[in-house]
Parts: sequence; structure tokens; C-alpha cells
Amino acid sequence: MDRMPKDTARPALDAGAMDLLFREARTHNGWLDQPVPEERLKEAVDLMKFAPTAVNASPLRIVFVRSAEAKAKLKDALSPGNVEKTMAAPVTAILGYDRGFYDHLPRLFPHADARAWFAGNEAFANDTAYRNGTLQAGYFLLALRGVGLDTGPMSGFDADKVDAAFFAGTNVRSNILVNIGYGNPAKLYPRSPRFSFEEIATFA
Amino acid sequence: MDRMPKDTARPALDAGAMDLLFREARTHNGWLDQPVPEERLKEAVDLMKFAPTAVNASPLRIVFVRSAEAKAKLKDALSPGNVEKTMAAPVTAILGYDRGFYDHLPRLFPHADARAWFAGNEAFANDTAYRNGTLQAGYFLLALRGVGLDTGPMSGFDADKVDAAFFAGTNVRSNILVNIGYGNPAKLYPRSPRFSFEEIATFA
Repeated sequence: MDRMPKDTARPALDAGAMDLLFREARTHNGWLDQPVPEERLKEAVDLMKFAPTAVNASPLRIVFVRSAEAKAKLKDALSPGNVEKTMAAPVTAILGYDRGFYDHLPRLFPHADARAWFAGNEAFANDTAYRNGTLQAGYFLLALRGVGLDTGPMSGFDADKVDAAFFAGTNVRSNILVNIGYGNPAKLYPRSPRFSFEEIATFA
Repeated sequence: MDRMPKDTARPALDAGAMDLLFREARTHNGWLDQPVPEERLKEAVDLMKFAPTAVNASPLRIVFVRSAEAKAKLKDALSPGNVEKTMAAPVTAILGYDRGFYDHLPRLFPHADARAWFAGNEAFANDTAYRNGTLQAGYFLLALRGVGLDTGPMSGFDADKVDAAFFAGTNVRSNILVNIGYGNPAKLYPRSPRFSFEEIATFA
């Protein structure tokens, strides 16, 4: 077909799905005493990975911190305000990005020699890793919500300490931490205001 | 309640919604001759804005390019491979980020003087704008799919030219372009490979 019928005939999320992902979902600070099934985390990763990145770079790397030993290593790197909720979360995901992503491009982007666009161009490669790893972090937060989990993303931590503890000897750099579990609604703060459409967007 | 029942009782997206957002959605290169209702674009922005950013910074700014004059201004900034599909798209969104976001924090983050954390700390403010504007770009791409639109994100353009043409005299910097419309499935490329779960994530 060359034309679709009318706009309203296109598939779209129903109102419940829009609420689950965006309108009713909240950033959680307290966690119910309920474990997170590993299968849910796998399902969220296997959704996230299909969303687009430049040259299919796919630089996001994730460490799911669950053990007491790994939680203790993470604790030293956290801003004071993030310690208690992070230690209480069933899982804390370290979202990093692989600055060496381009070595995988012959497999991930087989129809051009995209590796050559980045090898030896460190500033461009690092920025591409950071931008696209952050895009994937956005996809992943929504995928986690999509499989029924609650999230608490944080940027208040010492990235050098996290890198030394979890990514030593690799090209991966830490970007965002995300507490994951089933949120305790009693510990939510009131939702902060948002911009109006007109303050965000214009037509040209 | 302090405990939820069992995991399977939590609301989650159904398989059709997961397909629409992630598994079946594709980056489009060709467009059907069908206009995009302004209402759909507004709906997508008004979903995206509820997803989280650090200190509720909300730095994403969007210009929806639709007119012939604005398309012509954009054309000069595009990489050669992006010209034809962008000129043919019903709408091209310029996704930018506001490096002056912190001036809005007294309103968006009223419970602390977060403006003071960024004012006079330009490197930190710029990085926060870039990271969180990119996170919001990820949310927005999924929100566009969620309202039934197809997308074609691109990073192949001259950001300085786009900034000069669309953001002169502001603190906004361009980040990602997104063609928006109803994709022509006949012009899709085969989907490129993705990593396995184990190549992306580990447990610690």
C-alpha cells in the first residue's frame, strides 16, 4: 500500500499504556520488600536494544548490582542523599557506555565500513558513545516501566569511583545509576511541575 | 499496602504495545504522502515531558520544521545522505537542549535552590543539559511511536549551521534531527543485528 487510510486507523498505545510509561509513572525513593525476577530485567534489556542508535552503535552496557559485596563497592561512590535508597533497592543498574563500541560495527552495521569513521577519531567516538548510550538509557527506563518495574534514576555519584570499581581495564564509562524494584508509594514526593507544550516546542 | 502480591500481578505493557514501541518499530527512510496531524505531535510532547530528568531540568527544546522556507534552511546543514529523505518527510523535528535550563529550576524544582548548583559552573551545566536533553530525546522517540507515528532519527548534520539558522541568540544547541510521518514500508532496509542480553548486561 502507498497510502494508509486515515490517521485514527494507525495503531497507538491505549491510555493505560501511556499512563504506565509516562503520565502516572514516578521516580521512586522507597522500595517494597519484594524481589525483582531476573526474567523481568532480561525482558527490559531485550526490548531496549531494538530502539535506534546512530550506526546501530548500541553502546549501552549495564551492570545489575544485587549482591551485598557489589552494593558495598557502589556505596562509596554515591552522593550522601542517594545512599539509603540505593542500599535498600533490590537492584541498582549501572548504565555505562562503551567508548570502544566501534570495534563491533563490522557485525552491527555490516553494510558500510563504519568502524573507520571512528577509529583514530577519539573525540567523535567518545561523544557518539555518550550520546547514544544516553539515548539507550532513556529507552531502557521506559522499557523497565513497560515490564512492570519501578525506577529511580540518579546522576549523583562519583563516576571515576564507579569506573574504577566496575569497569577497570575496559573502555566502558559510567553514566547513570538506576534503582529498580517495586516502589513504595508512601515514600513518593509530590510530582514537580512540567513545562507547557508551548514552552518546549515551536513550529517553523 | 506494604507488599504487593506477586510479580505477575503488576501492570505491564501487552505484547502489541511492546511490538509497537520496540520490537516491530523501525527507523524509516521513506514517507507516505499523508500529513501529520499537529495534535499527534502535541500528544507526544505532552507524554515525553513526564519522564524523569535530573533535578527535573527538562532541557529538551523542539522545533517542528514543516514549512518550505524552514525546510530549505535545514537542507544546507544536512549530510548528503540525509537530504532526500528529510526534504520528503512531512515534519522534521530539531531536538535541542537548553544550556540555560537552570534559570527555570526555581519553578521546576521548587524544594531546593538547584539553580545555584549550575549558575557559574558552565561545564557542569552544559553536560547536564546535553545528557538530560538526550535522555528526553530517547523518551520522545518512543512517545512518537506510542501515538502512532513513525520516526527517522539522524545525527548526520552540521550542528553549528542548524544552531545559526534556528537557535541564534539563545542558549539552545541542536542535538538530533528526527524525520516524522507515516513510513513507507517499501523503503525500509533490513533490520541490523542486535547484541544478545549477555553482551549488554552482567549481574554483580
